[in-house]
Amino acid sequence: MRISENPIGIFDSGIGGLTVANAILKLLPRENLVYFGDTTHLPYGDKSPETIIAYSSKITEFLIQKKVKLIVIACNSASSTAYDAVRKIADQAGIDVVNVIDPVVQAVVHKKFHKVGIIGTRATIGSQVFPKKIHLEQPSINVVSLATPLLAPMIESGFIKGEISKVVVEKYLSNDSLSQIEALILACTHYPLIKNDITRYYQEINSQVDILATNEIVATYVQQVLMDSGLVNTSLQTPHHQFFVSDYTKSFEETTRLFYKEEVELICKNIFKK
Amino acid sequence: MRISENPIGIFDSGIGGLTVANAILKLLPRENLVYFGDTTHLPYGDKSPETIIAYSSKITEFLIQKKVKLIVIACNSASSTAYDAVRKIADQAGIDVVNVIDPVVQAVVHKKFHKVGIIGTRATIGSQVFPKKIHLEQPSINVVSLATPLLAPMIESGFIKGEISKVVVEKYLSNDSLSQIEALILACTHYPLIKNDITRYYQEINSQVDILATNEIVATYVQQVLMDSGLVNTSLQTPHHQFFVSDYTKSFEETTRLFYKEEVELICKNIFKK
Repeated sequence: MRISENPIGIFDSGIGGLTVANAILKLLPRENLVYFGDTTHLPYGDKSPETIIAYSSKITEFLIQKKVKLIVIACNSASSTAYDAVRKIADQAGIDVVNVIDPVVQAVVHKKFHKVGIIGTRATIGSQVFPKKIHLEQPSINVVSLATPLLAPMIESGFIKGEISKVVVEKYLSNDSLSQIEALILACTHYPLIKNDITRYYQEINSQVDILATNEIVATYVQQVLMDSGLVNTSLQTPHHQFFVSDYTKSFEETTRLFYKEEVELICKNIFKK
Repeated sequence: MRISENPIGIFDSGIGGLTVANAILKLLPRENLVYFGDTTHLPYGDKSPETIIAYSSKITEFLIQKKVKLIVIACNSASSTAYDAVRKIADQAGIDVVNVIDPVVQAVVHKKFHKVGIIGTRATIGSQVFPKKIHLEQPSINVVSLATPLLAPMIESGFIKGEISKVVVEKYLSNDSLSQIEALILACTHYPLIKNDITRYYQEINSQVDILATNEIVATYVQQVLMDSGLVNTSLQTPHHQFFVSDYTKSFEETTRLFYKEEVELICKNIFKK
């Protein structure tokens, strides 16, 4: 039996998914969260599908043990390769699964754009998961993808709102393939942290481009799923959040502050040990 | 029994160690290599010592099975945390182990500098392994460290010799702490690829700074160890190299070309599976 007081489970290969956690709590401040960052194995983008499915399945079982009422896969690589596997496990526990791709595809299709750009890691762009899914719904739309592998490490290194982020954002977004787009999908959980740099770039070249941050779109989708299933937490108790990582280092805790506004106590839990 | 025709074993958390492999083959073109890149688990820098030791031990056993005559730990994190564990295993097989830290420390001490700078990943700099080891040998030297976390991903993203690498290198090297250094240790296997950008920065500010690339120093050291133990390969057979990765992706193979001048066929071998 799922009850509304139960937490929302969120997982990612690392701490980038905290931007999704942030966006969810902004819309649904009474919810409890259980976050799992698989810091032992990040980044998932460089791993084979079999490996990503194995890790994601294990994490799903852990979240189910934690009695979550909904699972959010806050990782593009896991969303595109392990969604079916996660859903199969979650189904047996009667739990819905939200990934970070389908809600974004729905949002794009709904707005009826003609040309849309997508930026993400090499793995996300290489998988072509966004163009494929968008074209299934709206074959006429022109979807252009650009791998922007330096953005996530740049953000993790704290280069936000300065000269380096300006030069790097400009270098990528001025790519010919992205000309004339009406919207840009930020297909990486890290990118909301440079949404301002991206917005400024388009302002400076006088271009009207809709910036679609996946974390906000996914949060809105999660809210809808909970409302539809009567599982929005209405309890007046102070929310309780737990943040697990599979391997702890100080550097993670430092970076965590970039992604999550409040202080976070990371609990190290290696669920993969035999 | 170790024989000179046996290969040199080299391992790294990923493919950065290929710059070390490159430098070794430049000095010792008749040697055979067995390279192991633990791409399932990279980057090691974010992992706990216990985890790094466990992975490094497993790889050492694999290399011993491959009958290597010498093991080179071409990874800073493994060199600083797993060297003793690797040596213990290798000792039993009568095999020497070279790490990427001690040869550099020796080179610095030998040159009697007064002030030396070190740049590396957050993990390498945070560990303070270089300053500690240098001070043990030469307490009076002023060693200043700077974490430069964006450099490795920048290099992996192919930003070399262009505007972005210029801006990023300038941003880091102009840091006050590095003023008046006589030498700069590039304490990351990736950095030899931007040695030219770094040299140009110091030329432009008219500064005489000795750039110490760890791959070249380690290669010279390996040559010495092999000469001392009579294990330099003098066979006239065409050398045979094997490159193993614990997880294969196309993106790795692409990046491999940046680090290793010749085409490489990566063999996927997950030695960690139970």
